[in-house]
Amino acid sequence: MRILKLPLEMRCLSERWRNQGLEVGFVPTMGALHEGHLSLVRESLRRCERTVVSVFVNPIQFGPAEDFGRYPRPLKNDIRLLRRLGVDALYHPSGRAVFPGGFATLVDVTGPVTSGMCAPRRPGHFRGVATIVAKLFNTVKPHAAFFGEKDAQQVAVIRRMVKDLDFGVEVVALPIVREPDGLAMSSRNKYLSPLERAVAPAIHRALRAGERAIASGERKPGAVLRSMLRAFATRPPLRVEYVEFVDAETFERLKILKGNVLVALAVRLGRTRLIDNLMVRVPVRGGGGKEKE
Amino acid sequence: MRILKLPLEMRCLSERWRNQGLEVGFVPTMGALHEGHLSLVRESLRRCERTVVSVFVNPIQFGPAEDFGRYPRPLKNDIRLLRRLGVDALYHPSGRAVFPGGFATLVDVTGPVTSGMCAPRRPGHFRGVATIVAKLFNTVKPHAAFFGEKDAQQVAVIRRMVKDLDFGVEVVALPIVREPDGLAMSSRNKYLSPLERAVAPAIHRALRAGERAIASGERKPGAVLRSMLRAFATRPPLRVEYVEFVDAETFERLKILKGNVLVALAVRLGRTRLIDNLMVRVPVRGGGGKEKE
Repeated sequence: MRILKLPLEMRCLSERWRNQGLEVGFVPTMGALHEGHLSLVRESLRRCERTVVSVFVNPIQFGPAEDFGRYPRPLKNDIRLLRRLGVDALYHPSGRAVFPGGFATLVDVTGPVTSGMCAPRRPGHFRGVATIVAKLFNTVKPHAAFFGEKDAQQVAVIRRMVKDLDFGVEVVALPIVREPDGLAMSSRNKYLSPLERAVAPAIHRALRAGERAIASGERKPGAVLRSMLRAFATRPPLRVEYVEFVDAETFERLKILKGNVLVALAVRLGRTRLIDNLMVRVPVRGGGGKEKE
Repeated sequence: MRILKLPLEMRCLSERWRNQGLEVGFVPTMGALHEGHLSLVRESLRRCERTVVSVFVNPIQFGPAEDFGRYPRPLKNDIRLLRRLGVDALYHPSGRAVFPGGFATLVDVTGPVTSGMCAPRRPGHFRGVATIVAKLFNTVKPHAAFFGEKDAQQVAVIRRMVKDLDFGVEVVALPIVREPDGLAMSSRNKYLSPLERAVAPAIHRALRAGERAIASGERKPGAVLRSMLRAFATRPPLRVEYVEFVDAETFERLKILKGNVLVALAVRLGRTRLIDNLMVRVPVRGGGGKEKE
């Protein structure tokens, strides 16, 4: 596995591959790799002839009070995991190489995909994400890029940006990978104390409770939310930051649940902020006999 | 000359050329081509193995009270001019092909290059420019792109964006082409009435007066401005919108003129807004004998 530190090196390697007619797959990460990341890497290796993984903790997607400083950076272990899978190149630039002095350009995705959920709670976050992904796409020049559905809003932002700015990159989103007890894999799970970790499976239980409420015919977000909150059995250290019900395609907030509904939430477990979601296909009711099945 | 209307067609053609190892040059325009544009096209033809010219009147760089609707669109003549020069491809997409429904992503260049000059007078203009150029670069995938120095601030914005977002495109800026009486070539010169056209050479005369004032030792922007205003002999239909003195590299406004100074201005001639500029190298004074020559 080649390890590249400079944007120019990375671009030259990728252009060489492209000129040889090879399909380049790309998995952008902030490192601290877990099974969720590795599932993306495996899919890229399966689909593409060359796979690039980037490890870069992107400062501009963190708010001033967020965890940029303490975000885990176990690079040696990440390298070992990627080597073992057979990744072709690791792109691991320094902060200075990516953001030299005078940096002043931001990519701003507006509209429904950045109006709710994490966007108002993390001002500037998705602008930071869109900007770094634009930069990485221009450096790595992939044919396809792989993202996890845990970050569903991030995926929507990137799809919007790719379409709007004509990046010509196929955006592939893959299912959330969970621990046996249902907790979605996240690099931030490492922050959890034993007590917090013991409480954490309530997140997925709440999502499943919401799914059951919808399956049993409930169409009002407020009522689904109440059954989810019962499943949370919220008590310290767990606090719910938001639960939202949006159209899985447009990210518009739903007043009546229909179509493909993304049930998305963020919680705080002590100092740690975790997100999770579940896509629920709302069946069309057969009652009147006139609606489509 | 091939004429391409769809982003996907354009991208495929350019990728084919790149895969053949051919250097692709690109001249983005809004059409209504004049000698200024043609000088860019000739330079691209000279330097690159393939040359793409785009003609697209970009709606998102016009303000609501500006001239998007009446901007000249003499496409047949543009095609004739480009064919005669031997351009390889004209990219001429429709508004709907470039901005389909749901478009929501903007590229925003902040900092000194968008703090003065046209930026505060045309809110959103440079965001519209940066966004369309990002889209065009992703579609045309050029090695080099050619711009005119008349739009000096635009060139600075694009250089900043290319650097910040790692586009890997060489930005080439070429000198202003002028009419024999000094008026900078512009598609908007067509708007001028005979009287306005007769007054228009005052713009270049004023820039030259500023240059002379600096050459004669003046280092205070206010004093240079006064000699320029005398040369303007401003009276209706000419009104000066701004005259600014900025560092040609950083676009920071200068309180004392030194280094490479861009003297930039905008005027209104009746309903028509025109811009022009001159780069002046301020000589280091020899008096003390300790300063560099």
